[in-house]
Amino acid sequence: MAVNSPLPLAADLKPIAGIELGFAEAGIKKPNRKDVLIMLLAPTATVAGVFTTNRFCAAPVQVCKAHLEGLHMASGPMRALVVNTGNANAGTGDAGLVAANATCVALAELLQCEPAQILPFSTGVILEPLPVDRLVAGLPKAIANLKADNWYAAAEAIMTTDTQPKAASASIVINGVTVTMTGISKGAGMIKPNMATMLGFVAMDAKVSQAVLDHMVKRAADKSFNCITIDGDTSTNDSFMMIATGTSALEVNEIGTPEYVALAEAVTALSQKLAHMIIRDGEGATKFISIVVEEGRDAEECRKIAYSIAHSPLVKTAFFASDPNLGRILAAIGYAGVNDLDVSKLDMYLDDVLVAKNGGRNPEYREEDGQRVMKQSEITIRVKLARGEASTTVWTCDLSHEYVSINADYRS
Amino acid sequence: MAVNSPLPLAADLKPIAGIELGFAEAGIKKPNRKDVLIMLLAPTATVAGVFTTNRFCAAPVQVCKAHLEGLHMASGPMRALVVNTGNANAGTGDAGLVAANATCVALAELLQCEPAQILPFSTGVILEPLPVDRLVAGLPKAIANLKADNWYAAAEAIMTTDTQPKAASASIVINGVTVTMTGISKGAGMIKPNMATMLGFVAMDAKVSQAVLDHMVKRAADKSFNCITIDGDTSTNDSFMMIATGTSALEVNEIGTPEYVALAEAVTALSQKLAHMIIRDGEGATKFISIVVEEGRDAEECRKIAYSIAHSPLVKTAFFASDPNLGRILAAIGYAGVNDLDVSKLDMYLDDVLVAKNGGRNPEYREEDGQRVMKQSEITIRVKLARGEASTTVWTCDLSHEYVSINADYRS
Repeated sequence: MAVNSPLPLAADLKPIAGIELGFAEAGIKKPNRKDVLIMLLAPTATVAGVFTTNRFCAAPVQVCKAHLEGLHMASGPMRALVVNTGNANAGTGDAGLVAANATCVALAELLQCEPAQILPFSTGVILEPLPVDRLVAGLPKAIANLKADNWYAAAEAIMTTDTQPKAASASIVINGVTVTMTGISKGAGMIKPNMATMLGFVAMDAKVSQAVLDHMVKRAADKSFNCITIDGDTSTNDSFMMIATGTSALEVNEIGTPEYVALAEAVTALSQKLAHMIIRDGEGATKFISIVVEEGRDAEECRKIAYSIAHSPLVKTAFFASDPNLGRILAAIGYAGVNDLDVSKLDMYLDDVLVAKNGGRNPEYREEDGQRVMKQSEITIRVKLARGEASTTVWTCDLSHEYVSINADYRS
Repeated sequence: MAVNSPLPLAADLKPIAGIELGFAEAGIKKPNRKDVLIMLLAPTATVAGVFTTNRFCAAPVQVCKAHLEGLHMASGPMRALVVNTGNANAGTGDAGLVAANATCVALAELLQCEPAQILPFSTGVILEPLPVDRLVAGLPKAIANLKADNWYAAAEAIMTTDTQPKAASASIVINGVTVTMTGISKGAGMIKPNMATMLGFVAMDAKVSQAVLDHMVKRAADKSFNCITIDGDTSTNDSFMMIATGTSALEVNEIGTPEYVALAEAVTALSQKLAHMIIRDGEGATKFISIVVEEGRDAEECRKIAYSIAHSPLVKTAFFASDPNLGRILAAIGYAGVNDLDVSKLDMYLDDVLVAKNGGRNPEYREEDGQRVMKQSEITIRVKLARGEASTTVWTCDLSHEYVSINADYRS
């Protein structure tokens, strides 16, 4: 059960003109579950994405990157995205690349376009061969049920250890034009995106040039999916894609204009919502924890400290237990690798409670105040470094028995 | 119950001429348990140590460093080490320094020496005031039972969440002289020493000059305590001390001589044994895992990859489950931060089983072979990078339900 995250309602998810979604039960790993998704795009659509920095980057990620780099060449705009769950097609060597390309060839034939106009995505177990025959056999079924209002089913079709689908919509009026956007994401473990995320797709109906969309997707990722961590395990398959279908009257062709800023803010807010859904549904999560590091010299040192706290198993188990054993947070700050940090000026808050002052226990801190905050399901840790003006926020969850159970049992 | 680690026998622990050990039940955190240890040194002894790099380095560590730096000044050689458990005296600001210094003053008065001739150590909960009155009140009791053959009781006196005392002895004949050495260590959680360890003390009866001992302790730490991790949490109190009492006929005054090499190898082997005891008794550990990374460009990249595997909660839970979900190891290699790593040349073994070959699944790998190795309680992961001649070994344990239980419950 995800932390304070009610199930999205299918009725709240708005169709985006220029995108149709279809799914199939292809039996990739298990029978009787949706495991293939196709997103069919209008010819006016632009697509941009960011991907994992993991060196064992999965075969479909390598193919996606190559196809996006080919955008300026002859093959034409992207026509479809295809996603399978149940197998990551990572750590699969050359055979994996052959399988990912075969998927693109098969779908291109069905849609009568070029393979280079297809973007493939996979998620699931690493180091096992992709059952490409079953995947290809599922494609006609997915095409048969393509519909514009299939977003809820699409969110379900990309789930792995997720306990609930992750999806949200928003709309914004810019220059009198209403822009509508809908996104989906998946992921609950192996979550510490680095310049990308597990799987996230956000679509909108504005018309956005390729260069502007490339910029917008990085900006949104950096403020959303790149600020979350469940277990510090950066996946081999992280991909975050942004699609602008070009079907509304709003056109954005330049970075920095008022239209750009308004649209980028709105799409970033939606991405943040989707990223938070991943944390709230983190494997075994019982708490949603925001870590704010302020007054740093630069964003990099703030991130180092925030992630050091977020990844500490001792901090995470203390939150699971609602035990204000808060010295563990100081220890994590201390080993974060900020080698000239003067801890004698550092303050640390738990929500509104000042726990550590000038690097030591606040004389007025009382255990019962820490206890009160620790019992909540949403908690903010705030660290003030007193050495600059940079700040950052990272979102994470606790480490529970359930996390161990899920991951000692994932493949069975 | 520690992994394949029988309890040390008191009879196997050899006294070291020039050292007496005494303990007390001072009630630092709980009544009726040994929580104070004094090690009294002969005036001929030299002492060297390495300490945590955590910026929230504990008050006693700061005092130890200052006293060791003062060695060349007027105050004379170190006379005693004093250790308390139950409270780390870390994250305690100026009050913590006052308490650590007060401990030295009190013990110096009892021993009729200078406070600068005392080295203080603490371990336990962070961010809580040290009950210095109770500690000081325990000192006369500890002095009253000083004995040369108290090593087993000393190992018990420094335990916190350890399930068993950690101690070992060795002897070596160099130039016809028998050198005897005995060491103790403690630690089971918050273990990822960085240039030091939780708490480790190794003593020998050779006569070793200060400069040589400084060199020897770093060499031993780098090949033992600096190669282990349980949870990636570098403690605020890590300290590893080496003592040469100068009571045997062997004298070592120069680095690199045959005597130096023989003694350094022997004391490093003993330190490794003590470090392995910490992993075998890791919180909730059910497996002892050696991670060997070979054929790297330099030791640094080998360490990055080894620690990335060792800290991955997904890898650790798979080992707990004896589930050969070995793609998780590839993912951890991929995000280790070796940015120019060509994974297409990488091989990965589980003991003698070749799992991944040239960056993909070995076509001859069969799940039952992986399963067989995963069921063992001692497992070696071997990664060959095929890009150089550097190598490293890191030792770690798995992540079990018991780890979560222990750390969700530590202070109660």
